[in-house]
Amino acid sequence: MEIRKVLLTEEELPRQWYNLLADIKLNPPLGPDGKPVTPDMLSPVFPMNLIEQEVSTQRWIDIPEEVLGVLNIWRPSPLVRALSLEAYLDTPARIYYKNESVSPPGSHKPNTAVPQAYYNKVFGIKKITTETGAGQWGSALSFACQIFGIELEVFMVRISYEQKPYRKLMMNTWGAKVFSSPTDLTESGRKVLAQDPNSPGSLGIAISEAVERAATNDVTKYSLGSVLNHVLMHQTVIGQEAIKQFEKAGDFPDIVIGCFGGGSNFAGISFPFLKYNLTEGKSIRCIAVEPASCPKLTKGEFRYDFGDTVGLTPLLPMYTLGHTFIPAPIHAGGLRYHGAGTIVSQLLKDKLIEAVAIHQLECFDVGVKFAKAEGIIPAPESTHAIAQVFREANKAKEEGKSKTILFNLSGHGHFDMSAYQDYFAGNLVDHELTKDELNAGLKELNLHPVE
Amino acid sequence: MEIRKVLLTEEELPRQWYNLLADIKLNPPLGPDGKPVTPDMLSPVFPMNLIEQEVSTQRWIDIPEEVLGVLNIWRPSPLVRALSLEAYLDTPARIYYKNESVSPPGSHKPNTAVPQAYYNKVFGIKKITTETGAGQWGSALSFACQIFGIELEVFMVRISYEQKPYRKLMMNTWGAKVFSSPTDLTESGRKVLAQDPNSPGSLGIAISEAVERAATNDVTKYSLGSVLNHVLMHQTVIGQEAIKQFEKAGDFPDIVIGCFGGGSNFAGISFPFLKYNLTEGKSIRCIAVEPASCPKLTKGEFRYDFGDTVGLTPLLPMYTLGHTFIPAPIHAGGLRYHGAGTIVSQLLKDKLIEAVAIHQLECFDVGVKFAKAEGIIPAPESTHAIAQVFREANKAKEEGKSKTILFNLSGHGHFDMSAYQDYFAGNLVDHELTKDELNAGLKELNLHPVE
Repeated sequence: MEIRKVLLTEEELPRQWYNLLADIKLNPPLGPDGKPVTPDMLSPVFPMNLIEQEVSTQRWIDIPEEVLGVLNIWRPSPLVRALSLEAYLDTPARIYYKNESVSPPGSHKPNTAVPQAYYNKVFGIKKITTETGAGQWGSALSFACQIFGIELEVFMVRISYEQKPYRKLMMNTWGAKVFSSPTDLTESGRKVLAQDPNSPGSLGIAISEAVERAATNDVTKYSLGSVLNHVLMHQTVIGQEAIKQFEKAGDFPDIVIGCFGGGSNFAGISFPFLKYNLTEGKSIRCIAVEPASCPKLTKGEFRYDFGDTVGLTPLLPMYTLGHTFIPAPIHAGGLRYHGAGTIVSQLLKDKLIEAVAIHQLECFDVGVKFAKAEGIIPAPESTHAIAQVFREANKAKEEGKSKTILFNLSGHGHFDMSAYQDYFAGNLVDHELTKDELNAGLKELNLHPVE
Repeated sequence: MEIRKVLLTEEELPRQWYNLLADIKLNPPLGPDGKPVTPDMLSPVFPMNLIEQEVSTQRWIDIPEEVLGVLNIWRPSPLVRALSLEAYLDTPARIYYKNESVSPPGSHKPNTAVPQAYYNKVFGIKKITTETGAGQWGSALSFACQIFGIELEVFMVRISYEQKPYRKLMMNTWGAKVFSSPTDLTESGRKVLAQDPNSPGSLGIAISEAVERAATNDVTKYSLGSVLNHVLMHQTVIGQEAIKQFEKAGDFPDIVIGCFGGGSNFAGISFPFLKYNLTEGKSIRCIAVEPASCPKLTKGEFRYDFGDTVGLTPLLPMYTLGHTFIPAPIHAGGLRYHGAGTIVSQLLKDKLIEAVAIHQLECFDVGVKFAKAEGIIPAPESTHAIAQVFREANKAKEEGKSKTILFNLSGHGHFDMSAYQDYFAGNLVDHELTKDELNAGLKELNLHPVE
């Protein structure tokens, strides 16, 4: 019997987050006046303890005991050798995945939801607002806020709200209020609805709504599930655990793969490995996989842009399709975001990571094959990582080379079965971003080029 | 940071199943002529290697390597100390659960689906038929048949088919064909539809359809997810793992609790502990929890009865509400079965285990509280076990006694969110079995009293 899972005990949980900002340089976020944003300017929407983390350049930051004492509900997560998939692909590659689907909300998102809820609680915050796409982030924050006794309002992108009613119920079960965004509860939402009453919504719009709601209320703060530095940092427990697990397995990855929406699960799995590249001269390939219908990394521009649609956030230096870009309604709702986190954008600009865009039909095809081989039905987001794994494993076969591939199984698809239904019924199409769509998005971008 | 999970490595997977038939005596199953059934008579529907297990009285039976090599996709399952629930209940009781929701299909069912598919394959079987209630069993067998390359047809109880469309899609993803039972594909189904075209279906009817389909085709066999001796035995990996895990935790249960449909998850968690009672004079309380709307253990009679509605199975000595009994359409579809496994029935008759019936509103109430405390949203079936845990923990508090309680979290509720939706909307009612319903069921039972 070949061993599949490399497990760690709770005592082996990482005690610190790895802050990649210690090892690279970023352009600063800018205010509406084009001048760098100060921590104070972020304080209407974030508690100061999280703002401090956002701007910190300290390499290691301690994880509070109270946070570890919740992470241990499901962490450390298993590192799984995909033996059945290897056999199916008949590849010389050794394929491993971190199984982040084992958390109660079913994805990697609670890795940052829990510390964010904790720091808000410590700061005396009573209520948090947030947005959610496919619902993974909203579920995770509902779970975390429930634990720390914080009220939560979730603005859920309308297309997902309608496609995934049970995600909403999951959030309700953990006590959160969920709105279908755009709503008429905010100026931002009303503005969008005035232009298009049938707007399917987007992460950018939902962020505008949640930020506005927090900024206009003193005891309410806002929480984001990706993009920001501290959010990506909280996810580094994934890669740190993987490093310990590879040590136990007597192996080490040549390639690390994660799907890409704003950057959080990709950062979580790859940053601790990138540290070897940045500080020890290793050359592990780290590949971010985005949907072909929302290809900011491969077709966007590296410019200053807003993180939300309406323009309430600071201007961030990032790969973007333009903050008014509304992605096609593919099922991987968590990847339907116009921009990319600033750290990941800088890494790509500096050619320290790779990016690839893949169509959704290829993704669902490999998703079903993965489910048949390994059992777990992956989230539509995670199928993007799997698609690249298939490509790399097939290449290894062609080349007759043995390689070690690691990917992040960021979540399961239990709340995305309607997507599989559409796929089986032949109702899914590939969305290639058109020149017109691209230009429509990019026309907003002439404000602040990065120097 | 208090430790929550007691983990085992794959090397610590149990290597043998515990066969409780070595330690108790059963009345034999009878044929239509009232004479004991011989193994040969079962061969039209089961492969002989599984029939041999069904009648074996050998205490330990080796688990094949090929089966261990699939069980290790998710096993050993974690033993979790429910620290947050203990705090919520403010109880001196120590509460633990085996988390069987971590399997790909999300329940304990693959523990027997995998060996059943394996033994069928070894016997040269190309196609299997089965029934499913809530869909947990059908999903598990779809997963297992996919792995061993066997075709599968699932007769899914109509009420569940309609309440849980995504369960069907999960089975489709693993390659199974799923029918809404009663169908017009079988004599049994047509007979039921003739009497009631709007029949919501029942496990008993679905079993009739699946058995008939297998019995009328040479290379097709039938597979059952509960009730039978070999099925219950396959589940004993759960309790055996728990014993090793309690050893590591330096604790041991006073009370073991499982929900009860046909008996498989209850047997899985309790039989290895009952062995201590049967062979070493211990007195661990083992409690089976059934729904108040389908109370065969607490209100049924111990008689010979058919396992299916139409009467195609042998007569089994068991607690039953009568094989024509159609349970109220509660959401815990896996518990809507008129009878109980013969081993569990004998244990109850001999007062070696306890039984209790609980209403569904109490179950959903504790289910939501459990989800809020421990994160995992339990399957409606599993909430029955949780309800009894709450009762025992509250009793321990009243008595000021510290007790160790173990229960089986048989599955998660990700595919049962429509049930939670109904609960939150106030649409669920308690179904108490009426005298008329009981008599309607029991009037069939005068054939063969147990001596």
